[in-house]
Amino acid sequence: MISEEFDIANPTQTDEYLTYYKRIRKDTEDLASPLAIEDYMIQAMTNASPTKWHLGHTSWFFEAFILKKFSDLQKTQGLITEPYTPQNEKYNYLFNSYYQDVGTPWPRHQRGNVSRPTVQEVYGFREYIDSFMLNVLDSNLRDDNVEVLTILGGNHEQQHQELILTDIKYNLSINPLYPVYKKTDTLQPGPTEIPDLEFVPFDSGVIEIGHTTPGCFAFDNEMPIKKVYLEKYKLANRLVTNGEFLQFINAGGYRDHRYWLSEGWDKVRTEGWSSPMHWHNIDGTWHNYTLSGLKRLDLNEPVTHVSYFEADAYAKWSGKRLPTEGEWEHAVRTLGITPENGNFRESGLLHTRAVTFEDIEQQKVAQLYGDVWEWTASSYLPYPGFNVLAEGISEYNGKFMSSQFVLRGGSCVTPVDHIRPSYRNFWHPDTQFQFSGIRLAE
Amino acid sequence: MISEEFDIANPTQTDEYLTYYKRIRKDTEDLASPLAIEDYMIQAMTNASPTKWHLGHTSWFFEAFILKKFSDLQKTQGLITEPYTPQNEKYNYLFNSYYQDVGTPWPRHQRGNVSRPTVQEVYGFREYIDSFMLNVLDSNLRDDNVEVLTILGGNHEQQHQELILTDIKYNLSINPLYPVYKKTDTLQPGPTEIPDLEFVPFDSGVIEIGHTTPGCFAFDNEMPIKKVYLEKYKLANRLVTNGEFLQFINAGGYRDHRYWLSEGWDKVRTEGWSSPMHWHNIDGTWHNYTLSGLKRLDLNEPVTHVSYFEADAYAKWSGKRLPTEGEWEHAVRTLGITPENGNFRESGLLHTRAVTFEDIEQQKVAQLYGDVWEWTASSYLPYPGFNVLAEGISEYNGKFMSSQFVLRGGSCVTPVDHIRPSYRNFWHPDTQFQFSGIRLAE
Amino acid sequence: MISEEFDIANPTQTDEYLTYYKRIRKDTEDLASPLAIEDYMIQAMTNASPTKWHLGHTSWFFEAFILKKFSDLQKTQGLITEPYTPQNEKYNYLFNSYYQDVGTPWPRHQRGNVSRPTVQEVYGFREYIDSFMLNVLDSNLRDDNVEVLTILGGNHEQQHQELILTDIKYNLSINPLYPVYKKTDTLQPGPTEIPDLEFVPFDSGVIEIGHTTPGCFAFDNEMPIKKVYLEKYKLANRLVTNGEFLQFINAGGYRDHRYWLSEGWDKVRTEGWSSPMHWHNIDGTWHNYTLSGLKRLDLNEPVTHVSYFEADAYAKWSGKRLPTEGEWEHAVRTLGITPENGNFRESGLLHTRAVTFEDIEQQKVAQLYGDVWEWTASSYLPYPGFNVLAEGISEYNGKFMSSQFVLRGGSCVTPVDHIRPSYRNFWHPDTQFQFSGIRLAE
Amino acid sequence: MISEEFDIANPTQTDEYLTYYKRIRKDTEDLASPLAIEDYMIQAMTNASPTKWHLGHTSWFFEAFILKKFSDLQKTQGLITEPYTPQNEKYNYLFNSYYQDVGTPWPRHQRGNVSRPTVQEVYGFREYIDSFMLNVLDSNLRDDNVEVLTILGGNHEQQHQELILTDIKYNLSINPLYPVYKKTDTLQPGPTEIPDLEFVPFDSGVIEIGHTTPGCFAFDNEMPIKKVYLEKYKLANRLVTNGEFLQFINAGGYRDHRYWLSEGWDKVRTEGWSSPMHWHNIDGTWHNYTLSGLKRLDLNEPVTHVSYFEADAYAKWSGKRLPTEGEWEHAVRTLGITPENGNFRESGLLHTRAVTFEDIEQQKVAQLYGDVWEWTASSYLPYPGFNVLAEGISEYNGKFMSSQFVLRGGSCVTPVDHIRPSYRNFWHPDTQFQFSGIRLAE
Repeated sequence: MISEEFDIANPTQTDEYLTYYKRIRKDTEDLASPLAIEDYMIQAMTNASPTKWHLGHTSWFFEAFILKKFSDLQKTQGLITEPYTPQNEKYNYLFNSYYQDVGTPWPRHQRGNVSRPTVQEVYGFREYIDSFMLNVLDSNLRDDNVEVLTILGGNHEQQHQELILTDIKYNLSINPLYPVYKKTDTLQPGPTEIPDLEFVPFDSGVIEIGHTTPGCFAFDNEMPIKKVYLEKYKLANRLVTNGEFLQFINAGGYRDHRYWLSEGWDKVRTEGWSSPMHWHNIDGTWHNYTLSGLKRLDLNEPVTHVSYFEADAYAKWSGKRLPTEGEWEHAVRTLGITPENGNFRESGLLHTRAVTFEDIEQQKVAQLYGDVWEWTASSYLPYPGFNVLAEGISEYNGKFMSSQFVLRGGSCVTPVDHIRPSYRNFWHPDTQFQFSGIRLAE
Repeated sequence: MISEEFDIANPTQTDEYLTYYKRIRKDTEDLASPLAIEDYMIQAMTNASPTKWHLGHTSWFFEAFILKKFSDLQKTQGLITEPYTPQNEKYNYLFNSYYQDVGTPWPRHQRGNVSRPTVQEVYGFREYIDSFMLNVLDSNLRDDNVEVLTILGGNHEQQHQELILTDIKYNLSINPLYPVYKKTDTLQPGPTEIPDLEFVPFDSGVIEIGHTTPGCFAFDNEMPIKKVYLEKYKLANRLVTNGEFLQFINAGGYRDHRYWLSEGWDKVRTEGWSSPMHWHNIDGTWHNYTLSGLKRLDLNEPVTHVSYFEADAYAKWSGKRLPTEGEWEHAVRTLGITPENGNFRESGLLHTRAVTFEDIEQQKVAQLYGDVWEWTASSYLPYPGFNVLAEGISEYNGKFMSSQFVLRGGSCVTPVDHIRPSYRNFWHPDTQFQFSGIRLAE
Repeated sequence: MISEEFDIANPTQTDEYLTYYKRIRKDTEDLASPLAIEDYMIQAMTNASPTKWHLGHTSWFFEAFILKKFSDLQKTQGLITEPYTPQNEKYNYLFNSYYQDVGTPWPRHQRGNVSRPTVQEVYGFREYIDSFMLNVLDSNLRDDNVEVLTILGGNHEQQHQELILTDIKYNLSINPLYPVYKKTDTLQPGPTEIPDLEFVPFDSGVIEIGHTTPGCFAFDNEMPIKKVYLEKYKLANRLVTNGEFLQFINAGGYRDHRYWLSEGWDKVRTEGWSSPMHWHNIDGTWHNYTLSGLKRLDLNEPVTHVSYFEADAYAKWSGKRLPTEGEWEHAVRTLGITPENGNFRESGLLHTRAVTFEDIEQQKVAQLYGDVWEWTASSYLPYPGFNVLAEGISEYNGKFMSSQFVLRGGSCVTPVDHIRPSYRNFWHPDTQFQFSGIRLAE
Repeated sequence: MISEEFDIANPTQTDEYLTYYKRIRKDTEDLASPLAIEDYMIQAMTNASPTKWHLGHTSWFFEAFILKKFSDLQKTQGLITEPYTPQNEKYNYLFNSYYQDVGTPWPRHQRGNVSRPTVQEVYGFREYIDSFMLNVLDSNLRDDNVEVLTILGGNHEQQHQELILTDIKYNLSINPLYPVYKKTDTLQPGPTEIPDLEFVPFDSGVIEIGHTTPGCFAFDNEMPIKKVYLEKYKLANRLVTNGEFLQFINAGGYRDHRYWLSEGWDKVRTEGWSSPMHWHNIDGTWHNYTLSGLKRLDLNEPVTHVSYFEADAYAKWSGKRLPTEGEWEHAVRTLGITPENGNFRESGLLHTRAVTFEDIEQQKVAQLYGDVWEWTASSYLPYPGFNVLAEGISEYNGKFMSSQFVLRGGSCVTPVDHIRPSYRNFWHPDTQFQFSGIRLAE
């Protein structure tokens, strides 16, 4: 992504666009392929949408923001003779997520209660969209706007690829049969010993964060470049492990209000939190539910499915703190670490992986990319001079800039070509169902 | 059912039991057959269970109350060598509805969030149960208890057959695509003219209601026979029609608190009620959603999908009242009306049917059976001397005897051999999703 | 009240009306007199209105239904020269309870959040109303309608007198300081021994219930006379005691679903019910909170502050049942028992009283009147031929006829001249804060 | 406060401590003095505590953190012979706000439902505390810890003084009688013309914010000093006025989702927001409810009672943005503006005041202090190196550092000696009931 040669995430030629579009679209369908029809339907909480909906929504995105939008324009310009016709007008209602500009979206919590279109019909809708999109991309209908929006649509679809995996994990997890999404190598034991936790120092000064690579895609919320003053700080050389987090649990961490933010403590009490999400203590032995089913908890793997509140409580308990997003990004840039070596979706594990001595030797600060999204102590707010995307697509990111925290680095279910140093993920501080974990700082 | 010859609902011989059991089980599956896999999954409100769950639950019923229960006993008696083994122990959790005696039931509102077992696996579970049940019924494992519980299980399954239809109607109805469950003859227009509403008089006196036919099945809540003193009363010769109910709407009935019970008026305001459920005013023309899809409202058909609150408000507005269950049952018995001529599920319409002059000529008081369940002004309470069913199955009916009203007569989705003069259906007064309608009295 | 001589509850002469009106109004203020200003304000749950509101509402009743209503009429007739002018137009909003006809009522749950008018201003409002009312009653402005509505207003105010006591009991009870409303003789120990529970038989047949005394006041819901067929039954000779109910608790009654109606069991679990309301187990000793403060539980006193669900569960556990309202009223009429000997508000205890051997000797079935409202197994429904009160006041009773159960006999906080054989109280089956108790039948 | 001479907010000598303590305590009671007893009791929403509770809580603070805490220590040291005895042990429950360390607090939403202790008893509790506190301050019981905690307690009480006013404003405001807290000069018309909105430029660079005055009190959340990099920015020369905000309303600002953060738009729809809190459109004329009662809206006064969501939406609509807390503090420090000239509680208005040409001439950027708290675009997060207060009092500020935004500058109900350049107020972004307003930046 940051190389100068051809970059699969940033096409420039027609054949590159075609390849790019097809690849993204196929990846989505590959992720859905292990599922039974019934699995496509479930939505066990409002935040965890059905796979079927993701398949439809990511197609609707191209319809709403490219095919419909430029259709009239292209007709006027004589590029086409008939404007684009939606396969079904009601899909604009059913598959709209939150774009008020495009119309009232179908209620979010009702996504799982819609049996029609069927899964097969949704795949048909995908094909319908693809045929038009490929036609547009392979013709002089493709202008700058289309190019920009196609790449945006691709990145949007990659975000939903990750959501397909986190959502289906949650949706299957509430089933007492603990269904398996797909057997992976997850169950192979990791290293029996891992490196000690150490803190790597960084200097103070004014640094820059944000998107810095012209010609490469980035979301609006990564721009413009922001100058930040950092005090001297230290960053942990690896993520917090399950074993370390278990010590927090065993020390009564979930029962002692002093470690918790007030809103977090409310959650602990009203929701009865006593461990990370997906942990199960079965006859005294800790297990966690994974996309490969229930497995014995590996103490050396990084802890995941913790909320910001849990991450912050753990940090307080251990006498440390969480890093800011500036500290995280500065470390990545200073150390010159690239995503390629991270444990991303492409590893096929779809699960966290214990750090090795080798990782730390090579990278000094290991696991910055992949495995788990790292909660930062930074609120999700605009960078100075922030501009939302153009009219129509302006609701993409900006309107969520309240009450959320930034996470960095991508996880084991993020596609590797979707991440970069400036990438900002964001979730409410009580969110547990994402692959989110803990990096300490001091 | 009340004839003296062989009665399909009340077997006595082995072959009759086998026929009975197979028929009931097949009926259930026939009802599910028009559905897509996706349709089996949906639960758009807590009260409207997924079809898949109904298929599993009605099978679990035989497992929990016959196969498991008598297995140990039969082993002791040397009738079998191995006790019954459940196909999956967790089905006892997932498919239990409300039987606390049998264990904690899976949360009702979560029935639609369980993708596994798949639909196919549930059919496999049905076959598994059937093979054991047929074996039991066809052998000297069948004793009195098994016979009683088999008939109970059959009647239980028929109740769920009706629920499959009412629930799927609701679950499909919220979809803006208005999916069709099955095309029927519903769309054929009924008679253009129907008889005037008239009121047929009945004498006062002490009468008897309740189950009176020895050897025939009835639920515990229909027994023992109850003596009731009735004042002189009159019963409407037919049900209230859509056209008549539309006059109530047009007269502002939904906006005038004076016609409403206090709890009903709260519903009108908080839920925004302004017509029966499933009515849609599209560009000024009233339609209603049916199992055959959206159709133009037929003004001559009986109004349905009204709550007790709406039925009572309509009655008050028209200067009449709803009959008591004693009045209803006395009329049926006095007039000697039998279910056979009613519009039940077997008609294939799965929808209401307008009354004809001939109906009234033949029956004096028409539509007492079939078409819609008739709200009565009677609370659902035990008859004097009521005893719940035996230990184990005692939770079947008795524990619901608070805050509900009795409905009588069966509807267009009730199997005809499931109904009888003493049959008591019951729902909370705000229930709209059942095929419930209005018979006036004075 | 059922004597032929002058009846304080049923005036006929001018001086009787003046006496009646003044007595009722003074009683209300006497009940409020032990309270601090702060106590007048509290509303710890929606159902328990502040005393200040009761004082205002009972005055508003005369304004809304007499003073305002007949003012114009009286002006036309030349009886007055100026129509009645409200002291404050907004009181019609603030002090309306649920009369939609009179305007939108101030939200019920907000009654405690209104500091103005102050308590003193509300007493001023009472005086204002009284001066007009006394003028009307003492003049030829008083016609039949005014007479009927004055008596209704008096009975209405007596209902609120009882509510002032039950509501302030609840409102004070949640305070960890256990404030005392008024020290009474409650703490004197009752008899150390009480009569055995025995069941007194009654014959079967058609009997009559309802209001039967011409010239005496009764609510619309007690009329017209209703014929009921009763099977032979037996009624307990006294109420269930705290000691007996404690056995139910100790036997695990609150943990065994088999005794509970389904909706009751939901309450037990979601609200954590484990004893009657106002019971406190302090270091192993049972106490109950009373209007005289916290006291040690007297095992011989009748149990009170139980819901219908608890009463019904207790009855099931003891192998008995609750009586119907027909059975209760028939017993009272057959035995010729009158309210005079009951433990009503006039006893000054404001608390239950243990039954004595003498009570039972004299009355055969003791405690039918007073001490606690007795839950019956009858739903609150209209009698055949029921007519609501005249236009304007028609919302008084009829609109609550769904989902509630009838209670009979009055309690230790009911004024004795407010009760009669046909009196029907009604509450939802989960209500605990009333002085409600248990009479068994079989 | 930032002068070198004697500072009323930062005592050092015994007599200064006594003066300080007495002044703070008296101020609180002066604020309560216009209220009727009934007014002390009301809590119309969970967030708006009753005045009576504030009076008790601010006294409890001294009991819990000084009198109880050092009592044993002082006894050991021979400074006292008897340890401090609480007046009532249960006040530790009733008057604890959120200090888990000190015990479970009485439920926040129930503060208005506790009539005892009465108002008079609470004043008695205040006297009781005062007698002990004055004794401690005037003796060698006063050590460094006591001094620090006394000043903290004083500042704590000043925060509650402001809350007494904002809470009582809300609590009275829901009353349709629009009660007057106290007649002030508010109703005098302001200037008929005010200066144009202009933007004053500031340079970029690394600046410092946070508490910088040794020997003066500041909260933990203002420390340590934080270095911030600021881009060049401009700050509006005055606050946004009612008239300007009315243009936003009239332009449909509350109906156009594009100006709103997603969570704000949810509030607009679910709560029906259509103007700032306390605005009433009466027959086409805008009024606002003030502590002096309802008055006609003055278009020149700064808009107040707007949430962050409304402030941000207004800023977006006007093509501007809100300043960060760094920008705000830098402007104050650069311009050398001090609180003294602001419209604080001491002005006696208890209401906003229109800016004058003179204000702007003198200050360049006017109204930075007083009138309204200014929403900043900064989340409420710790400064690098933040340490919570000592054990016991550690819950004061730190645990609220999630999901809130910082406000700066104090308001017309803040005591002037309570504010300083580094003072950070914080509220959730949906908060309207505070005196919060809008300063634009670009």
